[in-house]
Formats: sequence, structure tokens, C-alpha cells
Amino acid sequence: MTDTSSPLAVPFPPLPAIAGVTVRVARAGYKNWGRCDLTYVELAEETAVAGVFTRNVCCSSEVELGRLNLAQGHARALVVNAGNSNAFTGYRGREAVEAIMRQISGHLGCPPEQVFVSSTGVIGVPLPKDKARAGIEAALLTEPCDWEDAANTIATTDTFAKGAAAAAMIGDVKVQLTGIIKGSGMIAPDMATMLGYIFTDAAISPAFLQHCLSTSNQRTFSCITVDSDTSTSDTVLAFATGKAGNAPLASFSDPGADAFAAALDDLCRQLAHLVVRDGEGAQKFIAVSISGAVSDESARRIGLAIANSPLVKTAIAGEDANWGRVVMAVGKAGEPADRDRLSIGFGGTWAAREGQPLADYDETPVVAHLKGREISVEVDLGLGQGCATVWTCDLTHGYIAINADYRT
Amino acid sequence: MTDTSSPLAVPFPPLPAIAGVTVRVARAGYKNWGRCDLTYVELAEETAVAGVFTRNVCCSSEVELGRLNLAQGHARALVVNAGNSNAFTGYRGREAVEAIMRQISGHLGCPPEQVFVSSTGVIGVPLPKDKARAGIEAALLTEPCDWEDAANTIATTDTFAKGAAAAAMIGDVKVQLTGIIKGSGMIAPDMATMLGYIFTDAAISPAFLQHCLSTSNQRTFSCITVDSDTSTSDTVLAFATGKAGNAPLASFSDPGADAFAAALDDLCRQLAHLVVRDGEGAQKFIAVSISGAVSDESARRIGLAIANSPLVKTAIAGEDANWGRVVMAVGKAGEPADRDRLSIGFGGTWAAREGQPLADYDETPVVAHLKGREISVEVDLGLGQGCATVWTCDLTHGYIAINADYRT
Repeated sequence: MTDTSSPLAVPFPPLPAIAGVTVRVARAGYKNWGRCDLTYVELAEETAVAGVFTRNVCCSSEVELGRLNLAQGHARALVVNAGNSNAFTGYRGREAVEAIMRQISGHLGCPPEQVFVSSTGVIGVPLPKDKARAGIEAALLTEPCDWEDAANTIATTDTFAKGAAAAAMIGDVKVQLTGIIKGSGMIAPDMATMLGYIFTDAAISPAFLQHCLSTSNQRTFSCITVDSDTSTSDTVLAFATGKAGNAPLASFSDPGADAFAAALDDLCRQLAHLVVRDGEGAQKFIAVSISGAVSDESARRIGLAIANSPLVKTAIAGEDANWGRVVMAVGKAGEPADRDRLSIGFGGTWAAREGQPLADYDETPVVAHLKGREISVEVDLGLGQGCATVWTCDLTHGYIAINADYRT
Repeated sequence: MTDTSSPLAVPFPPLPAIAGVTVRVARAGYKNWGRCDLTYVELAEETAVAGVFTRNVCCSSEVELGRLNLAQGHARALVVNAGNSNAFTGYRGREAVEAIMRQISGHLGCPPEQVFVSSTGVIGVPLPKDKARAGIEAALLTEPCDWEDAANTIATTDTFAKGAAAAAMIGDVKVQLTGIIKGSGMIAPDMATMLGYIFTDAAISPAFLQHCLSTSNQRTFSCITVDSDTSTSDTVLAFATGKAGNAPLASFSDPGADAFAAALDDLCRQLAHLVVRDGEGAQKFIAVSISGAVSDESARRIGLAIANSPLVKTAIAGEDANWGRVVMAVGKAGEPADRDRLSIGFGGTWAAREGQPLADYDETPVVAHLKGREISVEVDLGLGQGCATVWTCDLTHGYIAINADYRT
């Protein structure tokens, strides 16, 4: 971490190596910066792969091809380019990705569709094929690096390197899960696309890995927001090398499957939180907990309406217990809500219950809570059993400063 | 206008009196401010009324009762309270509105449901009944005032008074339309609710007036956004006294109905633009024009996705022709779009056509355009005939400064 790291930054933790995964980095020089910007990950044969991608219909060729490549279920390599998202670059962008896939496939002797490529950075500039080719050649000649090097290399405007780990017992075999991620707006298209990569030595079928990843995604990555802007390149990929030697997992009826899914969920949540902690301009980490909604999905949508509200986010930036803005955001969410059953609290203290301000509301503990770095907002709809937690950061002058002059 | 007015402010125009409409203002003292904050408008007998209201499900009692009161189609009075929105105040809030309706109904000898009440300001504090009663008594004793006084009195954090006029010929009778409005976020719940009032001397049935107002609303007020936050109190009411003496309008088959609808549309658009011009922190007025969408409604939604994107708005604040962010916003809108048919321009200059940056793109005229106060963004989807224009303002440090410390 440096002086310019987010005030919410956390140190990069010690992360275990994953058997069957080798990581290298190199300088492709996509931007005029003195740092590595190409990450090459080689994966053992028979590595299972699963992925989730942006729903932005203007997605990059990397996302399109990644979706197609998932169908055959296996991966031998991952290449991540930082500094150029290659999005909205037409056929030239697609050719650049296909050239990388061919180059690696020739080197490893694997089908090109087992090579996954991600790119992050400015939109609208085709990825330079020559720089990519030379960068990969350089990477192949270097010594393997550690996870922190890789986390720094996939980053763009991130202010700190982000990684996390988890583990699970499958029968008597301990499996490891390690993840790295970048993003400083989940949803910031030309500089802070969210890219996350998870590696495990567990033996697991591609279909079941996909099922676990999709489920975890729905309650972790899909529950964070920095600025409501959905990137054209968001990608999370999970790779399972099978080197741990556990009895392979193929469904929840297999022993250890629940433990693996819980560990994956834990890892995804850690990674998602790291992105929020590096949210552009963020000064506070905010958890919005919704209960009493008609369904979990309705709760998530209401949580996101609150977490995306500029007025709620600026109020928290100003350490102002302005619960009226939370009421507004609940009401605009387009989900079932009843004004006269609604309760709102901050940091565990109710400010309003069942549609009215509390007669004996003492703002003192709420004011103290809002002065901290970790803020919680509680909303009870009073309608049903649906619940969700959504994470975001506050909206500050820093966000404006970063984004009003990013490209220039 | 004052030194603290929005840089996009325009002078209050000369507005014609409307026969059958008498306006008075008084000091109810809802806040500790040395200005009038209660507006009382008396309307001739048989005045037709139409209205559109916020869709926020946590709406105020004023909105709830206003919706109910519309059913009988006629209005004798309007009361607007500034400084307290009376939203989320439970039964006490509702009682305060009903007390105002009864007081005026007793004074005028009309049914209480012909008295319309609006309130704007902080959420969660019941409107003080005693101050409202005394304020109305004071208003009844004062001389009538002009439209600018009324526009100033309904305002809260607005930085300039907002009014506009239009006229139409119905047969050989000229009818006048005058409107005043307040709002500095269309969508800023506890200080800048949008309230708009339109007065005309035209003779028109309540049902047809409602039809015209709803249609105009869909392409004017529903096409502006400052910050994507939908207020709990947004209200636009149209009152038609019938004093012009035209042959009454009841449908589009009546002579002059088209002219009246066009004049109403013009007036609503003027009023909507004034709100954007006073958007919190606004430095630039932005028109986003969408063409080639699959439908007009789809075009409007895509336009709003662009106009609500923090990254598009901060790019324009920074005078940065960052069209990649527009691509991102189109793609996240959830509407039909084809990346490879999409074209993006600024100020009439295309930056990208059919999914790719223009090979000979010269940014010079775009850079010059973005330095101005009035910005246009053009998007062609290349799919169909649907089009729409949406208006917004940029997102600046001013917005953060205003909203991070509003209540404190």
C-alpha cells in the first residue's frame, strides 16, 4: 500500500500456491507506463473452468469469446491485458483476441478455445496485436511470479493489490482456493472494469463449478456497486486444476460439496468487498442490509436502489443521518414496499419504524456510527421473509475529480 | 437572478395573468427563514383539473390525497407549502393536509376535495398544523401577487425563479397557458422535489385536460433527470378556468384541440428545461437525442440510462469527449441494442459509427462543443424508428458539496 491507496485499503494477504497453476507477468507496453501489464497463467491439463460475465450488450470480444469458450468446460491458459479494454473495436478487436488464443494454443498444443483472454482499460482502441504477441513471448521466458505481482499487473486505476483465499475439506482432503481481482468501480467502463480470477486445486466438474460460481456471484459480485455503471468487460473466471486429489465433486450430493460451495462463497465475498474498498473516491465502506422483503431478489433490488442513490451516498459522505433519503430510495426501487410498515436504521439504531420517525429517536449513537469507516444501513420492509445485503461506498469529491478528467 | 444563481439560469419572463386565477403568498414560517413560504391560489368555479404525481411508493399524504381528489375533476384552490415535504409522517401528516383542505373549503364554500395541497422540503417532520392555519389566514388578508412572487415562494433550494408561458388559438379565441415550477433535482427528495403548476383560461373537460397533460408529461417531465433519485412528492397540476370563452374542448376531434395540446407540450418542455438548468451543481445543460431505437419508449429508456450515468455526466463536466462511456450506458440500459450498429456523436459530429471509432475522427469540433454550456449527445441505434430526447445536467463537485451537507 502507498500514500495514494484508498483509506479503506487492506494489506495483500499471504496466499497459498495452487497446484497446477503457474503465473507469469511481462511488459506489453499497452500504455506508456513503467510496469508489467500482461499476465499469463498456465493451467494443468483437464482444468475445469466456469465464468460469469457482464450483461452489458455492448460487451467486448473478450467477453463474447470467453462465453463461447466456456461451453467445452476446460482451460489451459488465461491472458489478462491491462491498459486497453479492446471494447467497441469491431472486427479488429476480435482478431486481436483470436491471435492471442492461437499463439498460446500453438505453444501449449491445446485447442484455442481453452485459452481465456481478458482486457481492461480504455474503450474504443483496438488492442495492438504486435504488442500482445511480444508481451506473451516475453512472459513465456520469465520466471513464475507470486499472486501479488499478478494482482498488481491486472490492475489499472486500482489503488491497492487485491487478493484473498479460502479452503474447504472434501472428505479428508483439504482444497485451497485463491483469488485475485481488480476494479475500482465495479462499473467504470474505461478504466476500472472488474476482472476477478479464482484458482483452486479441487477436483470438480465444469458444470458443478459453474453452478457454484453462478450462485455465489448472485450474492457477492452482483451485490456490490460503486457508481451504477455496468462495464463492457466485467468477468469472473474460476479454474479448478483437480490437483488436490479429492474425490471429484459433481453435485451437492457429493461429500464436501457444501463445504466447497461455502468456501467459494466466502472467497467471492472477500474479493467483492475489496473492489468496494477501492471504489473511486471512497471514504466509507457501506453495507446495506434489507429484511422483510417479499423475496430475496426483491430485497437485493431495493438494496441496490439505496446503494446506487447519489443522495444516500452523498449523505453518508457528509456523515448525515438523513434517513429520509433512504425512504425515497426504497420507494423508487419499483419493488413491493408499504410506506407504513417501513423501518430504517443506521449502525443498529432505528431512526424510523413503521412509517414514522421514532418519537424518542436519539441521533447521538447514529452520528457517532456515521463518523466511522464502516457504515451499516438497515431497512426492514415488514412484508415477508426476503433479505439481502448489498455493499457500496460513499460518493465524494474524489469520485468527481477522478472521473471528470480521467481520459484527458 | 443573483450571484449564487445557476450559471444556466434564465431571467423570469413576463407572464400573462390567467382569468379566474388569483395568487397570494404569505409567511407560514415552516423554516427559520425571512421569506414567504406559503402560496395560495384561488380558482374560479368550475375550474377543471388534471395532475401527474410521483410513482415513488413512499409518497406523501399530499400526493395520495391529490390523486384521490383528481377523480371529481374540479379545483377551487391550491396551497403549496415550502420547507417541509410532510412525507413519511404517518397519520399526523395526513391530518395536517386534511386540516388545510377543510379550512379552505370552509372559506370558499366548496367541497374539501376541490382543494389541492402540495408540500416540499425535508422528509419525516409532520407539517405543523398551527403554522399552516395561520399562514393561510395571513394569505387570505393579503393583496394578490404576481407569478414571480409565487415562483419564488414555492421554491426551496432553487437558485432562480422559474416560469413560462404559451398560447393557442381555439377557433378564433386565444387561450393563455402560464406555468411555474420548482426543483433543483427533479429527484432530490428532501430539498428539491419538483412541483409544477400550470394555469390556463381555456375551457376544457377534466378528462381531456388529463389526457393532454399525461401525454406531455411522458415526453417532457419524464424525460429529465438530475440525479436519478425519484422524489416522494413530485407533482404537476394543470388548472383550466374556462374564462377564455372558447368552445369547450373534450377530445382531439374538437377544433383547436391540437393547438392546445401543442401549447401545453411547449409549456411543459420549457418548465422541464428550467428544472434541469437549476440542477444541483449544474454547469452544463445536456440534451441526449436517441434515434434508430426499436420504439420511442425504448429510446427514452436508453436516453435516461445515458443521462443518469455518473461516468457520462462527469466526463461532460470535465469537457472530455469520452464516447466509450456512452457506449457503456447504452449497453447497460436493458433495451435492444446492437453494438455493431451503434453510432455516437457530440454536437453533431460522429465519433463512432456502426460499432467502431471513425478512422478519420477529428476531435477538434467536439472539444470545442464540449467547452460550451449547451451540450448535445447523439446516439443512433440503427435498429428502427424509435426516437426520444432526454435532458440532464453534468455531475460536478457542486452536487457533492450541496448534498453532502444539506441537512446538517
